Amino acid sequence: MTRTREADRAAVEAANTAFYEAMEQGDFDTVTDLWLDDGATEISCVHPGWPVLTGRGDVLRSYALIMANTDYIQFFLTDVEISLTTDVAVVTCTENILSGGPPEDGAELGPLVGQLVVATNVFRRTSEGWKVWSHHGSPVIPETDPDDPGDTPGRPTD
Amino acid sequence: MTRTREADRAAVEAANTAFYEAMEQGDFDTVTDLWLDDGATEISCVHPGWPVLTGRGDVLRSYALIMANTDYIQFFLTDVEISLTTDVAVVTCTENILSGGPPEDGAELGPLVGQLVVATNVFRRTSEGWKVWSHHGSPVIPETDPDDPGDTPGRPTD
Repeated sequence: MTRTREADRAAVEAANTAFYEAMEQGDFDTVTDLWLDDGATEISCVHPGWPVLTGRGDVLRSYALIMANTDYIQFFLTDVEISLTTDVAVVTCTENILSGGPPEDGAELGPLVGQLVVATNVFRRTSEGWKVWSHHGSPVIPETDPDDPGDTPGRPTD
Repeated sequence: MTRTREADRAAVEAANTAFYEAMEQGDFDTVTDLWLDDGATEISCVHPGWPVLTGRGDVLRSYALIMANTDYIQFFLTDVEISLTTDVAVVTCTENILSGGPPEDGAELGPLVGQLVVATNVFRRTSEGWKVWSHHGSPVIPETDPDDPGDTPGRPTD
């Protein structure tokens, strides 16, 4: 039982990692494959600052759009936490994002931009592995006191 | 079967409504009761702009803090969507928030502030009803063209 649970945790973490690697590689087919498609359970997605997208059509179109406008993106995942029941897992993580748009003035890459985003990803077990049921990413708004890196606004404890 | 599913949807929607009503009423005990507490499944919470909070201690402290700093808050929920499996539900909704801080200059209420937030709330079925497993709220960043209310930045379709 414990071994199964550990295997489940490892499989969920692998699915979560694969999800971000597919984004890094601009691999739309893998992103499409990783999103739940059981014909019954509606998926939902919130990109940072966006409204909610519901259903495979809108969700996958959003990824196609983001990929078309991103020349370079890398996710350094930290604080990955997995909360697991039998068939559903809630994963939270911090996405330390480095991304760039089209190059300017003959440079190889466009200007790189760093971004701090936190995500809640819900995975569902299927016969073909764990699939993304819901993704919600949001910007972490920087603390008001730049001299105290631990002082995130409104954060209750540190 | 269909009737059970409809009953589940209604129960999930009621739990979601109760969650926001408890916030409106500053009812910390009800908020505490609505968060999952099965001794096994870790809860997580992201308030708009905040980092991830994990575990009942940090999550409940954050609500105590928010309630202590909020004299008035009202949620007008729109776009409530429920995606349901047997024991888990993912609810997305738009929180149209009107809130106010302490009164100034002898006024009855402090200045009211409107805020547009989208939320993904994950509920789990328990013997005591549907409980909040995860809450993730994030600000909707206003569109770049204020003349076109349908033009949300980066939104793929309308």
